[in-house]
Amino acid sequence: MSSDSDCRSVTCQASPNIALIKYWGKRNEELILPDNDSLSITLDTNDMHSYTTVSTSSSMTCDTFYFDGVQQTKLASRMQKVLNEIRRRTKDGKIKFVEIRSHNTFPASSGLASSASAYASLAIALTNLFNLDDAQSTAAYLARIGSGSAVRSIYGGFVRWSSEGECLSSCVFPAEHWSEFRIVILIFNSSKKAVSSTDAMQRTRQTSTLFQARLSTINEKMTQLIEAIKNKDFNAFAKIVMMDSSQFHAVCMDTYPPVIYLNEQSKHLIHLVHAYNQMDGDQTTKVAYTFDAGPNPFCFIRQEHVDEFLRLLKYFYPTVNADADKQVSSDADEKFSSITLPVTPNVLERIVLTKIGSGPKIIS
Amino acid sequence: MSSDSDCRSVTCQASPNIALIKYWGKRNEELILPDNDSLSITLDTNDMHSYTTVSTSSSMTCDTFYFDGVQQTKLASRMQKVLNEIRRRTKDGKIKFVEIRSHNTFPASSGLASSASAYASLAIALTNLFNLDDAQSTAAYLARIGSGSAVRSIYGGFVRWSSEGECLSSCVFPAEHWSEFRIVILIFNSSKKAVSSTDAMQRTRQTSTLFQARLSTINEKMTQLIEAIKNKDFNAFAKIVMMDSSQFHAVCMDTYPPVIYLNEQSKHLIHLVHAYNQMDGDQTTKVAYTFDAGPNPFCFIRQEHVDEFLRLLKYFYPTVNADADKQVSSDADEKFSSITLPVTPNVLERIVLTKIGSGPKIIS
Repeated sequence: MSSDSDCRSVTCQASPNIALIKYWGKRNEELILPDNDSLSITLDTNDMHSYTTVSTSSSMTCDTFYFDGVQQTKLASRMQKVLNEIRRRTKDGKIKFVEIRSHNTFPASSGLASSASAYASLAIALTNLFNLDDAQSTAAYLARIGSGSAVRSIYGGFVRWSSEGECLSSCVFPAEHWSEFRIVILIFNSSKKAVSSTDAMQRTRQTSTLFQARLSTINEKMTQLIEAIKNKDFNAFAKIVMMDSSQFHAVCMDTYPPVIYLNEQSKHLIHLVHAYNQMDGDQTTKVAYTFDAGPNPFCFIRQEHVDEFLRLLKYFYPTVNADADKQVSSDADEKFSSITLPVTPNVLERIVLTKIGSGPKIIS
Repeated sequence: MSSDSDCRSVTCQASPNIALIKYWGKRNEELILPDNDSLSITLDTNDMHSYTTVSTSSSMTCDTFYFDGVQQTKLASRMQKVLNEIRRRTKDGKIKFVEIRSHNTFPASSGLASSASAYASLAIALTNLFNLDDAQSTAAYLARIGSGSAVRSIYGGFVRWSSEGECLSSCVFPAEHWSEFRIVILIFNSSKKAVSSTDAMQRTRQTSTLFQARLSTINEKMTQLIEAIKNKDFNAFAKIVMMDSSQFHAVCMDTYPPVIYLNEQSKHLIHLVHAYNQMDGDQTTKVAYTFDAGPNPFCFIRQEHVDEFLRLLKYFYPTVNADADKQVSSDADEKFSSITLPVTPNVLERIVLTKIGSGPKIIS
């Protein structure tokens, strides 16, 4: 850390977001202008966030970046892009270099794209450090050119990223709007590194014969989803979200060569959620799933159903107790035995239970 | 078997077919009229076929069906439909009942739909037994109302099933047209029973938002594929076939709830084929894959590349030798080590190598 008298710094924390209507396809690679509107939930900073401190002083002779306290030998080109944009926007010409220190309170293996929270916290810290005009719009712009969907982590609650006009984001409903809403993240083990989503979405755009048809469904779906969230209509919400997730993975499959993010565990969870929702036969959807560019599911649920769902997960994804002669230590929950899916031990590594967050925080 | 003096019988053998452009969606459930044209390869009867004998005599008092020598207590409703159509078409009114004896020379676990060869052989045997007019068209009609894609097993070579007019099939190119063409069927083990394709395609039709877009791509793709086959242009052929397979699985994924036929082994083979085709960097596609409503791949290849491809399969899907302390007995084929995919032992149960067949045969 610089000890110069003119050293100034700002710290910000921002959370990852989970898309309900997926972003897939850039119509401008440089500015990261998306082909379609997307909508996401920003997670609670209390449970997980990126924490970024940006400092500047006249004596700095280059940009430096520390991740988890370790200085990085080279800045990623997209981080360079963000810093160059900052220099372009600061008129006095005095700001030359910055030092960035960042870490995440959640592991990379959590199935969450940490680039969204990282670039959102960086963008907000930079905007505040240099007192840029239109702070939120500027932060959104900076976050977007750093990592597309990071633009959605600039706000809390339900956030829409527009594919038109300035292609910035806005809060559609704040976190308080749906206070009983919960997110259950399942981390299946042995999940290998997925295909880079930047490459994959470019390939989809170039080769998928169904991609344009997906784009043409987005506006109506967006309107319906916003209406469902407005009315806290979980049944409608769940169906739209699950269908958009599947449609996204369908255009990945329709890519040449195909991009396949889901694995056997993903498939099992999909079947489990549908079977569970139909179990009571009362037309009440309890759980919805969505999958990003990876095999780990993000489940949505209302608080009243969380306990039962966690028991369901324990029943179908038990941990084998090595001391007890490989006996499966599942809850003998009679209720779930009507679901005719195999019990698959030792596949579920971790469960994260969280809720909707109220957005980034400036710490100092 | 009846011993009456007026007993007559006809025996026919017919082979399964593998779709290059998939049939998915019925616009008429009763008559099995498809939503789109499809194109397939009929396999060689020497390697696999259904063998069906149909007999009739005035003394029979009901229809009977023996499968693998065992009398079935109940005729499937679609078999009833075929027999009723025969009775409707035989004007003299004397033909009342038939006895059907059928067996397959390939096991149900071969990954091939045996209903296509079974209904094709039944339809041809019935048409000949009763000397019906327009024998091939009538047989095609009967096969289709029995089991949709069975209509394509009425002919040998490359066969097109039209979705227009009478919705019958025709041979586009005979087997001799592409004599160096080979089919390698991989049977991965532990492949569970897939979702019934009848139910699944109905669900796709009702819920997939991408299904209509798939239909709109078929005509152009069909024209291109027929041109590629005409020119024996394997590169063009391979790309169209692999893309149609993926597009079909994409609309299955886009179904609600999603229909997922591919598994980890399917995914591995897809990646393996693309890596293998790119290995020499000479733009020559050696292998193409297609997947029906199940996880087992059908690979297409020219005779000159068969030996190397079989070595590739042995390298990546070796059989563990239990006697040799679980050592993997793979070929140490240096050439393939440049492919960065995991070697997965004990997943490949069987390989069937076959070629294009010249169509059904009437035996007696």
